[in-house]
Amino acid sequence: MAKKIAVLGAGSWGTVLANLLTENGHQVTLWGRNAEHVAEINQHHTNRHYLPKFKLEPTLIATLSLEQALDQVDVILFVIPTNAIRKMAQQILPIIKRQGIRPMLIHASKGLELGTHKRLSQVLTEEIPAEFRREIVVLSGPSHAENVSEHDLTSITAACSNLTAAQQVQQLFMNDYFRVYTNADVIGVEMGAALKNVIALGAGALHGLGYGDNAKAALMTRGLAEISRLGVAFGANPLTFIGLSGVGDLIVTCTSVNSRNWRAGNQLGQGKPLQQVLDEMGMVVEGVSTTRAAYELAQQQGIEMPITNTIYHVLYDEKEIRTAITEIMQREGKQELD
Amino acid sequence: MAKKIAVLGAGSWGTVLANLLTENGHQVTLWGRNAEHVAEINQHHTNRHYLPKFKLEPTLIATLSLEQALDQVDVILFVIPTNAIRKMAQQILPIIKRQGIRPMLIHASKGLELGTHKRLSQVLTEEIPAEFRREIVVLSGPSHAENVSEHDLTSITAACSNLTAAQQVQQLFMNDYFRVYTNADVIGVEMGAALKNVIALGAGALHGLGYGDNAKAALMTRGLAEISRLGVAFGANPLTFIGLSGVGDLIVTCTSVNSRNWRAGNQLGQGKPLQQVLDEMGMVVEGVSTTRAAYELAQQQGIEMPITNTIYHVLYDEKEIRTAITEIMQREGKQELD
Repeated sequence: MAKKIAVLGAGSWGTVLANLLTENGHQVTLWGRNAEHVAEINQHHTNRHYLPKFKLEPTLIATLSLEQALDQVDVILFVIPTNAIRKMAQQILPIIKRQGIRPMLIHASKGLELGTHKRLSQVLTEEIPAEFRREIVVLSGPSHAENVSEHDLTSITAACSNLTAAQQVQQLFMNDYFRVYTNADVIGVEMGAALKNVIALGAGALHGLGYGDNAKAALMTRGLAEISRLGVAFGANPLTFIGLSGVGDLIVTCTSVNSRNWRAGNQLGQGKPLQQVLDEMGMVVEGVSTTRAAYELAQQQGIEMPITNTIYHVLYDEKEIRTAITEIMQREGKQELD
Repeated sequence: MAKKIAVLGAGSWGTVLANLLTENGHQVTLWGRNAEHVAEINQHHTNRHYLPKFKLEPTLIATLSLEQALDQVDVILFVIPTNAIRKMAQQILPIIKRQGIRPMLIHASKGLELGTHKRLSQVLTEEIPAEFRREIVVLSGPSHAENVSEHDLTSITAACSNLTAAQQVQQLFMNDYFRVYTNADVIGVEMGAALKNVIALGAGALHGLGYGDNAKAALMTRGLAEISRLGVAFGANPLTFIGLSGVGDLIVTCTSVNSRNWRAGNQLGQGKPLQQVLDEMGMVVEGVSTTRAAYELAQQQGIEMPITNTIYHVLYDEKEIRTAITEIMQREGKQELD
């Protein structure tokens, strides 16, 4: 059945998901904060800054007004940077109250909150009390926006401890090129989504330094092991890390030129300073702040995360990148299943 | 301590491993069955058919004679195609007896024996009784020969139920660009090594059909799940499949243009007939016969392997490849951790 949906965030992923939901017959309003982009979406049905070649559904409406976006909606989908989630939740709560609605909340962001290191469903739970919403569902998996915009086959995960809610989200998004699988392990899905960006920075750096496919595969394998360790310490199901939101997303993020975290790592590996890389990217690189969160969480929990530690020291302590990467790749050989 | 080692098989991987062992100070003889290649290795220190740009150590000797290759060796390393292993073991047993040696056996082949579907360490165990050898160790992991020949950092697994033997193999191979981790799970390492080639055929086919990175990551994720299921049914440790010889080798095989299984799949996806693909490749594509073995084992054990089944029907029943691949990618959405 057609739903009324607000999509918050008109970057590449928000725009593509809003368009997909429109194609699926839902009534969608896309909220953005850039007046030019919003006008372009409404007038020309394009969002060229993020998706140069993509033609949007003409019935997809964009707006600068949260009040308008949230008007009598059944569902609110957050697709904004990690560190904007809490403030956005605070902004929309009075609108939800005023309108007397009780929407389902979905988020498709991949990171941990800076400072608190909280998962984004925790942030939403804290800011929007249960009586003003239905369930919170997490959407994650190997899904470059560019691929989805070309109707390339994509398979992702909808996670909620209440599987009925996850199935409702599955129904909203599912079509012949976008396959949605449900998973009850919210912790594992959110931790995998956030932490794979750290490994992607490392994989990009390896490439920028001139290493080849064998080295990259080894880094990804050992990276998967360390992000699983941290996730499990926080209550995740280890099997989630070998699913779509774990190894699936890790693979796509570490091997595709479409990944901005990989691209940022690649440029760091080529010797560019971090600030220059971020300035030139023109989009948020979630892995940079997630690396700090992961590093601090690992320290607190006493979890061994050699790759994450190395990326942290490169980003925040100006450790020389070639020395750093070579050190972790050449650690003493040992038993694999320690 | 320097060892006397016979490397059987002068293809790309055998040549690179023989050269690496020579660099590490061992006395290595490389056995091959092609007189021209053997002469070229001895006279020009190259093996251009397999490794056009690679310059070998001048002290690496090649021979056509098994008797000469095995002369008083401490170690025999098999790097020959899967379906040549049993016959080779039968040929060398009388030589081992005649020489009165008791060598360690290592194999670095990736497949299951055609017909019997046995793992290669099982084949070696059957053909060379324990009194004529020391332990059998399996060497596997994400390791394109071309990368190793360029001294790209590579991390692999040495597997033996006797970890002391695995550590001895680790010592033989370990150097500053080749990192060896030990693992006691021989079944998991051999099953992962063999079965990832089936998924690589599928990943190549997706690419040949024009699918993008999201689809490939989803196929690899679901492929990892199904090869783990089959391996675990035969006694493998599930954790091995998220290690170097499992997901690591899967990643490198499914994402690198250096993988001949991926390249074969890619050409099938582009519409070339199987026989033409194999004729043009000029090297053994292990995944083709492994697909049959995996298909039959899954049928026997009642294990669900939708990707393997699909590749099987494309290879052996002339099922149209686009229809087949689209069908598995569009199976009904369901719960992820079934």
